[in-house]
Amino acid sequence: MDLGIKGRWAILSGSSRGLGWACAQSIAREGANVVINGRTSADVDEAVAQLTSLYRVEARGVVGDSAMASVQDELMSACPEPDIVLLNGQGPSPKAFLDIESEDWDSAVRQALTGPLALLQRVVPGMRDRGFGRIVAVSSAMVKSPNSLMSLSHGTRLGLTGVLKGLSKDLAKYNVTVNQLLPERFDTARQEQMAHVAMKILGITYEEARAQQIASIKAGRLGRPEEFGDAFAFLCAAQAGYISGQNLQLDGGSYEGVF
Amino acid sequence: MDLGIKGRWAILSGSSRGLGWACAQSIAREGANVVINGRTSADVDEAVAQLTSLYRVEARGVVGDSAMASVQDELMSACPEPDIVLLNGQGPSPKAFLDIESEDWDSAVRQALTGPLALLQRVVPGMRDRGFGRIVAVSSAMVKSPNSLMSLSHGTRLGLTGVLKGLSKDLAKYNVTVNQLLPERFDTARQEQMAHVAMKILGITYEEARAQQIASIKAGRLGRPEEFGDAFAFLCAAQAGYISGQNLQLDGGSYEGVF
Amino acid sequence: MDLGIKGRWAILSGSSRGLGWACAQSIAREGANVVINGRTSADVDEAVAQLTSLYRVEARGVVGDSAMASVQDELMSACPEPDIVLLNGQGPSPKAFLDIESEDWDSAVRQALTGPLALLQRVVPGMRDRGFGRIVAVSSAMVKSPNSLMSLSHGTRLGLTGVLKGLSKDLAKYNVTVNQLLPERFDTARQEQMAHVAMKILGITYEEARAQQIASIKAGRLGRPEEFGDAFAFLCAAQAGYISGQNLQLDGGSYEGVF
Amino acid sequence: MDLGIKGRWAILSGSSRGLGWACAQSIAREGANVVINGRTSADVDEAVAQLTSLYRVEARGVVGDSAMASVQDELMSACPEPDIVLLNGQGPSPKAFLDIESEDWDSAVRQALTGPLALLQRVVPGMRDRGFGRIVAVSSAMVKSPNSLMSLSHGTRLGLTGVLKGLSKDLAKYNVTVNQLLPERFDTARQEQMAHVAMKILGITYEEARAQQIASIKAGRLGRPEEFGDAFAFLCAAQAGYISGQNLQLDGGSYEGVF
Repeated sequence: MDLGIKGRWAILSGSSRGLGWACAQSIAREGANVVINGRTSADVDEAVAQLTSLYRVEARGVVGDSAMASVQDELMSACPEPDIVLLNGQGPSPKAFLDIESEDWDSAVRQALTGPLALLQRVVPGMRDRGFGRIVAVSSAMVKSPNSLMSLSHGTRLGLTGVLKGLSKDLAKYNVTVNQLLPERFDTARQEQMAHVAMKILGITYEEARAQQIASIKAGRLGRPEEFGDAFAFLCAAQAGYISGQNLQLDGGSYEGVF
Repeated sequence: MDLGIKGRWAILSGSSRGLGWACAQSIAREGANVVINGRTSADVDEAVAQLTSLYRVEARGVVGDSAMASVQDELMSACPEPDIVLLNGQGPSPKAFLDIESEDWDSAVRQALTGPLALLQRVVPGMRDRGFGRIVAVSSAMVKSPNSLMSLSHGTRLGLTGVLKGLSKDLAKYNVTVNQLLPERFDTARQEQMAHVAMKILGITYEEARAQQIASIKAGRLGRPEEFGDAFAFLCAAQAGYISGQNLQLDGGSYEGVF
Repeated sequence: MDLGIKGRWAILSGSSRGLGWACAQSIAREGANVVINGRTSADVDEAVAQLTSLYRVEARGVVGDSAMASVQDELMSACPEPDIVLLNGQGPSPKAFLDIESEDWDSAVRQALTGPLALLQRVVPGMRDRGFGRIVAVSSAMVKSPNSLMSLSHGTRLGLTGVLKGLSKDLAKYNVTVNQLLPERFDTARQEQMAHVAMKILGITYEEARAQQIASIKAGRLGRPEEFGDAFAFLCAAQAGYISGQNLQLDGGSYEGVF
Repeated sequence: MDLGIKGRWAILSGSSRGLGWACAQSIAREGANVVINGRTSADVDEAVAQLTSLYRVEARGVVGDSAMASVQDELMSACPEPDIVLLNGQGPSPKAFLDIESEDWDSAVRQALTGPLALLQRVVPGMRDRGFGRIVAVSSAMVKSPNSLMSLSHGTRLGLTGVLKGLSKDLAKYNVTVNQLLPERFDTARQEQMAHVAMKILGITYEEARAQQIASIKAGRLGRPEEFGDAFAFLCAAQAGYISGQNLQLDGGSYEGVF
């Protein structure tokens, strides 16, 4: 299937590893040029090198926390007219509701709500003017099925979900779509990290923690990052311009609710 | 993007025209063999001929109402081991709630609920045994945003939505996914028909009726059938096995609700 | 709290036992006159006798299946101008999806979808003309969280949910509200019956079956029928005229989804 | 209907005027003692005086912004063991998405997300220990139906919605319920203010602005604050302990979505 994005430019925050990296690979394979972003220059450089060696695309790298204004400056310098934007960032660690402190909220809000929205304020006017835009945020299954241990995550990501939905209504007529992907348990470093959290909290072995992760998924397996990347690529396609304001769950069929 | 469905077999109910026909084209282009189904042999024959001339796939035709047991017998004979099933059928005409009669319900229930489910009862055991299945139903935006004039439509399609969701939970572990596509105003004969209904009910011209359709869509245009077909193709992809129980709206960003 | 329904008349289908009976008691206590309906005259007569002895209200009884036209004739004769209507009926038994037969659907559709809607077609015009109506359906938690074993239940009740939502939009301006209550595990004969089903299917004792029911509820207990009745009474209140199209879950906080 | 809350104590943030004041009146009428909170001592004093003269309850007043730690200290001093907590605060003004600044978010997050949650962290342990709690937040219809002009509102209130849902799951077993009320256009000073915003933005008269507000509501009227107050009172009732994690819309039947 030709996705019609050859030669498009993408700013991909949080794309040097994990799900973001899978997204980068999927659209580079389809011919899109990308700006890779991550916390360390080693990761970013390697990602850029891999993409340019594997695919006939341009790739640039920006190191740093994409929620920061200075890093957003660099992202925009690297790609002043993005057609595609991926909003992705590290989620907060689990924390019991009663233990959450004011600083935890400050950090989570900046990472998951105000940082990403500030980036959108920079890119939306141009997308609107140019008549093409594909904005996709990596959210979490938690936003539809909250668990109090992850309050910092869904407490901010649900806010983002709402703002993006409102925005999607305004932008549809400019062929600018805004969607979210809601992953639940993909086989990335994040799940490794969550397994170690579970080992500590529950006093279980690594194998037990991983088995619990799999048992929580109706598909009976973790998701593969490339499955995630290809779903992202599809939402970026030229022919996906009629799909907006959606929250697509990639969770192995695990969500309980009908909608 | 390689969807990994080359050589797969698909039973596509209601696929000789409109959205179903677009679905057929999209997966045939990706190399899937298809059984075309429609109400008239002229349409079915032409669709089969087009597909086999355009793509290197096998195509067979079954004429008749796919909600009928005898037609389902023929569909299963034409393709005893389907990998992909599209549930698609003509929706009922608008009717004021107080005017709906018992026979209207009988017909709508058979077309949109019990007929499609009877077909699934035939195909699910085999998909489960073979470890691959992609079931997609064409539903309607109405199921999330009901309008009493379309009670016959969402009164049955929401029922189907629920049954498919329950089923999706059972089948995820067999790599059998069950999803729905929710179109809102695609440029097909259905919208032509709805425009003529609106002309009668509201006493407006054809042009006004079409303009009203477009005005109801936030994207400011009707959807193109091939956009629908490609979304269907993506949900049928090998790499879409982690996506199940979803109701993907293709509505130009028009749905009001956050979820 | 004065609910402002003293002297109002209510048709309560399925109200001689269980949750329906609790609804009857709650509004009779508030001074509403009621028509009791149930399958056996013994139950209906006793319910009528209890209400008239306990409260200063009129109570009448109609025996029979409220989904039948003849019984609906009697209900309307007993109360030609109802202000309140409760839609309640026995749910179908659990059945594996692949075992469901055409006749199962016929029966479930009549009981849970077309029967209740036929009753509404009788009462809605009068409510609209009189400028007051409170329509409440007893649905099930399953409609938001389907389980394939209960396909006959949510496959029909979700359809009803949709039709009622559409209808609620039309009727709001006449001070006619339409809402649903979604119970999950109340301490009634229904749960006794479900426990016996579980004993057979799972090979467990009665005590284990009951413990499993309680374990499935986040509140750690079954609901009390009078809690259900009072929620119904509140939705019937004069001051509840601004609440319509709602699906209120009474499930001890068990539903996973955010909406 | 006896709500069973006579003698209970309630902390009601934002309760000297508007919807919060209606909530205070409704539960004071049912015999609950209340702590009134508002921005000016004139309002708070008058509210306290009215309640104590009208009902046989104790009422205390705390002046100040309830999102501030110091004001929360005073609220807890005035009522160390609350049985009922109302989370209510002034919503932010409408603002175009591209004009929102970092400081706008800081303020909105504090008012609608972190401030209310900090208050909950103070009251939840006691409610849990005492085995009774009724937490109700006044949210907005926007959380289910976002409009980009109100991004500051739903961008924070949806976050709160998620955190409260997660929390509700943990607290159900302690007879502590957590619910939200979602008002849409009640006849309070807030709608006066919104009318003046509309006059400026749209260049319309006051009468036109008010007519537009009414036209947006399917019930054809604004809600009455006392309707809101009584819905709050019902959720606080002893017999509402099985209702938790709900988002009850009070919107005159206006919400489009089925759930």
